[in-house]
Amino acid sequence: MRCEVVAVGTELLLGQIVDTNSSWIGEQLALSGIDSYFQTKVGDNLPRIVAALRHALERSDAVIVCGGLGPTHDDITRDAIAEVMGVPLKLDADVAARITAMFQSRGRAMPESNLRQAMVPVGATAIRDPQPGTAPGLLCPIGEARKVLYAVPGVPSEMREIVSKAVLPDLRRRSGESAVILSRTLRTWGESESGLAERLTDRIAALDETRAATIAFLASGAEGLKVRLTVKAAGEAEARERLDDEATAVRALLGDLVFSDDDEPMEAVIGRMLVARSETIAVAESLTGGLLASRMVNVEGSSDWFLGGVVAYDPDVKFSVLGVRRGPVVTAECAAELAEGVARLLHAEVAVATTGVAGPEELEGQPPGTVFLGVYLDGKTDAVGIRLPGGRDTVRQLSCISALDLLRRRMLASSGSGS
Amino acid sequence: MRCEVVAVGTELLLGQIVDTNSSWIGEQLALSGIDSYFQTKVGDNLPRIVAALRHALERSDAVIVCGGLGPTHDDITRDAIAEVMGVPLKLDADVAARITAMFQSRGRAMPESNLRQAMVPVGATAIRDPQPGTAPGLLCPIGEARKVLYAVPGVPSEMREIVSKAVLPDLRRRSGESAVILSRTLRTWGESESGLAERLTDRIAALDETRAATIAFLASGAEGLKVRLTVKAAGEAEARERLDDEATAVRALLGDLVFSDDDEPMEAVIGRMLVARSETIAVAESLTGGLLASRMVNVEGSSDWFLGGVVAYDPDVKFSVLGVRRGPVVTAECAAELAEGVARLLHAEVAVATTGVAGPEELEGQPPGTVFLGVYLDGKTDAVGIRLPGGRDTVRQLSCISALDLLRRRMLASSGSGS
Repeated sequence: MRCEVVAVGTELLLGQIVDTNSSWIGEQLALSGIDSYFQTKVGDNLPRIVAALRHALERSDAVIVCGGLGPTHDDITRDAIAEVMGVPLKLDADVAARITAMFQSRGRAMPESNLRQAMVPVGATAIRDPQPGTAPGLLCPIGEARKVLYAVPGVPSEMREIVSKAVLPDLRRRSGESAVILSRTLRTWGESESGLAERLTDRIAALDETRAATIAFLASGAEGLKVRLTVKAAGEAEARERLDDEATAVRALLGDLVFSDDDEPMEAVIGRMLVARSETIAVAESLTGGLLASRMVNVEGSSDWFLGGVVAYDPDVKFSVLGVRRGPVVTAECAAELAEGVARLLHAEVAVATTGVAGPEELEGQPPGTVFLGVYLDGKTDAVGIRLPGGRDTVRQLSCISALDLLRRRMLASSGSGS
Repeated sequence: MRCEVVAVGTELLLGQIVDTNSSWIGEQLALSGIDSYFQTKVGDNLPRIVAALRHALERSDAVIVCGGLGPTHDDITRDAIAEVMGVPLKLDADVAARITAMFQSRGRAMPESNLRQAMVPVGATAIRDPQPGTAPGLLCPIGEARKVLYAVPGVPSEMREIVSKAVLPDLRRRSGESAVILSRTLRTWGESESGLAERLTDRIAALDETRAATIAFLASGAEGLKVRLTVKAAGEAEARERLDDEATAVRALLGDLVFSDDDEPMEAVIGRMLVARSETIAVAESLTGGLLASRMVNVEGSSDWFLGGVVAYDPDVKFSVLGVRRGPVVTAECAAELAEGVARLLHAEVAVATTGVAGPEELEGQPPGTVFLGVYLDGKTDAVGIRLPGGRDTVRQLSCISALDLLRRRMLASSGSGS
């Protein structure tokens, strides 16, 4: 079963919007075991959309066309599909009623053009819109070729809902794929891709024999390396059990390199560890300049364990606000004193601190990428120095994840650990 | 002249990497006045790359193929091009010498596979590599059709350099386009797209007549609305003059809605204003949690004017560290006191503060999106309340830009303004 993706929108060709929809759909198709060999972007132009859809249908068994289903005159995907199917459009009374009702419920007058969204090619089926009153998706059987074309909205949240709930199940039914495919992503920090592969060599070789699961590595920059486990089984229960077994086996081989077995970011893991310890945290940031704090507040519920922090960008702020001893600031001592100082100032049980050189210029004779991380935990301070590659932004991003990972490892080793 | 883009890489189809290269190239083509109607993604598979290139060459006069030029066995773009051209590959001695020299200069042994990067289809020209020892681009004339195919690396920085310096100039020469096209982006905050269009109605109507310039609006989310001015003229000097005139005219119509006429982010503008005033700034952040500070440190040279800040996420940090009076914190008074408190604590002349409800839950009976912004300037405090739409992250991003814009407007109105 081959399925390709056609994204519609002149703004995609002009580079005004990056087409993340196709990437997401591509990932979902791969996870569902459906081959996808081409993706195409085309502008809001009828003959060209028609040509792109025809060409895609020649090469593949199914096509997902994304975007161009809205109410404006630019939105001509449904006209293009009708032309490809060789049928007229007709008003779908049910969809029209839902759109009208949505406007009424909000007490707004409905521009006539909104009923364009209720037009459906004869022979196609409207896929129920996830949000009342928005454009529905379309399921369009293509002639005797027994091929199929799905149209989904370009708004990412609506697209994702329709693809997950309607398109993928239908595609898998058509592909005769009755197996259940499940995957889970372990996140790791502290080892290269080849290093991870080496630790997993025997496991991967064994899986090549048994085909019980597949293991893939995905580089995620400053978020570490992801290890994606995918299993296929006759039923959901069996798939889930096999996935659990595989995750357990891989975790045993990778040890504490794995910081999350459910694709969570590091700060969410830190948050859970702090909740288990009934402790709160504060951060002191020099070169990361607020980035570390902003990651903490991105975790839902972080107000339970994150108090706040001090961005001590200027050396004087380190000395006067956080009580760091006057002297060089690109040092392990400074990192340790920053952590202890912010814990004291904000009355936190735990703290983490960053200081160093983001670049482009050197500082205190130290080259860009020289970074010191401090941790305050169990009433004690501790600091380490690292050397990071990359430009200003990369050094900052890597400093954040390194600081979080240092704290995670110290908490794992701490007697106060509640996990 | 029509040019389309083919991006090569299985990782693009699998959604492991989002294809930002094609978006960037699409934007550059549009700015150069070259039509681009299709973009295609294809995996690392020889027959499919060949098919994609042939199909693109049928529809268009020129094709830019991006990626698959590296040294590994997956990198087969040059083989595909040779097949499309119907010629063999041969070693380019000059490129080979440069690659070998790069490895020698670093004292590293060169894996033989790196010489794959020096293989060039017979009849094609290597475009000099911007970074010594990396894959060069390729300029490939396609038979009697007088069409052309350019191959560029997938590494964004290398791709951008080769496209800017070699591909676009060659394309424009071929298109017979001798005119110089220049563009400039004004950034605005505080008005909707239709509001901006209304203010510029007469100007746009006049330009429709004279064709002296074009004006386009680009939505940039929490970064405001960009107004892109593009002019075309016989020579560089004339184009530049016309662009300056147009920018002056548009600025006059939009007034202080325009915060930058060179596509600068708001925080860089704030930095220049502070330097002109010989003043320093500190930030106090509740709901933005470090995001505002991290924007400041992203500006190069920000250590000249940015001292740091306090992330006062927990109410107690507001009271005990910044001297805010105990009481509700989702208020204008709290925002003002946060600004004044952080200015005092960090010895800054200027300060800006955020407090409010990011969501998803309400706080102090106030719904998500309720935000108060405080400014401390010229020894006085000032605060305003706003209501922002969107989820947690959007509310935070919008709070940051709103806070910066409030400060910008206050500085414009301030007698101490050095600008």
